[in-house]
Amino acid sequence: MKGIDFMQKPVIVLVQPQLAENVGMAARAMMNCGLEEMRLVAPRENHTGEKAVAASSGAEKILFEAGVFATTREAVADLGLVYATTARRRNMVKVVETAEAAAGEMAQKSREGIRCGILFGPERTGLHNDDVGIADKVIEIPLNPAHCSLNLSQAVLLVGYEWYKTQIEVPAVQLVTNGGQVADKEKVLHFFDFLGEKLAGCKIFQDEEKRPRMLLNLHNMFLRREITEPELNTLYGIFNYLSGKKE
Amino acid sequence: MKGIDFMQKPVIVLVQPQLAENVGMAARAMMNCGLEEMRLVAPRENHTGEKAVAASSGAEKILFEAGVFATTREAVADLGLVYATTARRRNMVKVVETAEAAAGEMAQKSREGIRCGILFGPERTGLHNDDVGIADKVIEIPLNPAHCSLNLSQAVLLVGYEWYKTQIEVPAVQLVTNGGQVADKEKVLHFFDFLGEKLAGCKIFQDEEKRPRMLLNLHNMFLRREITEPELNTLYGIFNYLSGKKE
Repeated sequence: MKGIDFMQKPVIVLVQPQLAENVGMAARAMMNCGLEEMRLVAPRENHTGEKAVAASSGAEKILFEAGVFATTREAVADLGLVYATTARRRNMVKVVETAEAAAGEMAQKSREGIRCGILFGPERTGLHNDDVGIADKVIEIPLNPAHCSLNLSQAVLLVGYEWYKTQIEVPAVQLVTNGGQVADKEKVLHFFDFLGEKLAGCKIFQDEEKRPRMLLNLHNMFLRREITEPELNTLYGIFNYLSGKKE
Repeated sequence: MKGIDFMQKPVIVLVQPQLAENVGMAARAMMNCGLEEMRLVAPRENHTGEKAVAASSGAEKILFEAGVFATTREAVADLGLVYATTARRRNMVKVVETAEAAAGEMAQKSREGIRCGILFGPERTGLHNDDVGIADKVIEIPLNPAHCSLNLSQAVLLVGYEWYKTQIEVPAVQLVTNGGQVADKEKVLHFFDFLGEKLAGCKIFQDEEKRPRMLLNLHNMFLRREITEPELNTLYGIFNYLSGKKE
């Protein structure tokens, strides 16, 4: 995310937003996703007033720097690629993309120097057909068709989130160890030897035929996920304590 | 999405939610994503009262059917795989996954008959360490680290959205034609012939050397995206009108 130029981030254009609170929450969602530039087309309420600022939860910078335009046409004048977000199909021949596909495309186009923007309509009605007509493409967020109405800030959040995901490299799955080193195989196998000795006298391990398989199963339980060195030390302590008690 | 068994959908567990309104909005977000089962651990306010129902925007069924539990332990007792959502790292050795990775895993595990659940903490503090400790894994939603606080319903929405995406097959990019047939090549090339005839006398097409390249460029402009038959007919009408005027 670091080093992403302001000009490479899509512009969020709120067309005729009705409530200042929603504009504030949209700014918050933008900041959650590392977006910076908001533009407002004929907002009904004051987007830098108390209500909007409170709702922005710390994203007031976006509100105070937001450009205000009389028409959508003026708001998108300097952009090269414009998407309209809609929840319902219009009677138009139009390219429709998922939020994920559009995010990938915007990331790509931005790198080519094409400034991108996304239109969001008024809370109650969504975008007017004329505004959808100004856009190159439509973004439809895939959601339960029986219940797909989102509030304005949630729509901004989902589209922004998809864009943000294109900008970062986060491991899909990672073991967070808080500084504890993952134990190398020598240490793990040494623990298994120790375990075998401690359990040598244990009744369920007495059957010579079954013992190798049982130890194998036990090893696999510990090997299923990485173990850290401090965790191994805890296990040594526990087995020493327990075996001491029994002897 | 059709045919997904109730038992294959992850359970959303809200641990000690503070405000009924937030529980209602979380129910709305769940319905947006096709999720059905909500469980509440020691909610502070009435989750079936007026405030919660109003905030749910039509998802009150989820509220009325929500199970209420005294402890997190009881709420997850019948689940096989439990995730904790957290915004900040804890001092624990834990597997941390993105919402997207966890969603894919839940979809897979559910098909294997393992019931999954996701814990969300109280609005102000997030999950207590003891509740994170009950979970198998942690979900961290990738967001701007400088501003990653989400409200409860937004966190539910993002995790639910990722899960929903694993359940559906939506084309990433599609041309919506509203019934208009995309014109086949014969029709498009016929239009190009027509265009060539109409423009034969046009000054900028007079240069014999440049003409082929200019026509090619013109063709490519029309070929850049699919054209439907009704659109072609409109173009015929327009060029006939314009050429008629000039002749």
